[in-house]
Amino acid sequence: MTTILDRRTPAQPDAPRPLTLDSTGVWQGRYRTDVAARDFAFTVAEPEGLGGDDAGPNPLEYVLGGFQGCVAVVVETVAKERGITIDDLRLGVSGTIDLRGFLGVPGVSPSFESIDGWVRLRADIDAEQFEGLIAETERRCPLYNLFRDAGVTPEIRWSLNV
Amino acid sequence: MTTILDRRTPAQPDAPRPLTLDSTGVWQGRYRTDVAARDFAFTVAEPEGLGGDDAGPNPLEYVLGGFQGCVAVVVETVAKERGITIDDLRLGVSGTIDLRGFLGVPGVSPSFESIDGWVRLRADIDAEQFEGLIAETERRCPLYNLFRDAGVTPEIRWSLNV
Repeated sequence: MTTILDRRTPAQPDAPRPLTLDSTGVWQGRYRTDVAARDFAFTVAEPEGLGGDDAGPNPLEYVLGGFQGCVAVVVETVAKERGITIDDLRLGVSGTIDLRGFLGVPGVSPSFESIDGWVRLRADIDAEQFEGLIAETERRCPLYNLFRDAGVTPEIRWSLNV
Repeated sequence: MTTILDRRTPAQPDAPRPLTLDSTGVWQGRYRTDVAARDFAFTVAEPEGLGGDDAGPNPLEYVLGGFQGCVAVVVETVAKERGITIDDLRLGVSGTIDLRGFLGVPGVSPSFESIDGWVRLRADIDAEQFEGLIAETERRCPLYNLFRDAGVTPEIRWSLNV
């Protein structure tokens, strides 16, 4: 599985390049599931307020954390392509749901209502390069596009060298 | 933050019940971001094939693992509501992307192309109860609905006592 996200140019550059990511989970009771992905293991849990044992982040926190990692991967990738050196990159993401959906109230979506965040980049670039980096990141980030396709476009405040 | 997902009945049962989940991330270089959510920390990384240090699951693996935890939370919640005892619950989820989207090929979505999985439940219920449990889980699971809203409805094979 070390070839995951292998970016070597394939024999047919225009052909689809499917990449499948696998994981399995075993429910442990008390709203806890232990997940395995490749050689990694992580625990998805709920806090005591729900009856859980608070043994780990909850499902939505993993999604929001994964989203931050996804944005950072694309920023770094595009920066490399453009000869930009990243001095520092920090992010924050908040997601809001209406709990009524999860609780089964008809007509209320259980999914995210909104996703907001910020990205603070330190790099020796001008405003035009920064705008280009933002646009390309939003265009190519898998999870940004997942949210946008679901009608929950993340509202991200980007700042440069502040 | 221990009131996250607090299910106590509010003063106005019909009012919206917004729940916001926050997290922050610090990019560490080499496609790695360290995320903090409440008192938890986890590392989002990429394997060596991408130039990463393989220090943790990648962004999409966290989303797929979170999805498994999310399904399990809703199954357990609905089962409790219906007086069903879960003897065992195991899950597997695979997500496929076309890497060309991430690499910037125009017209190719970087988001998931498909999400497939299986859920194996052991419980002393009949087929009708099982069908009801599946339908209610899909109706109320936040991440199932996120994917469905994005046009990537998860194809889940459910099995009972096999």
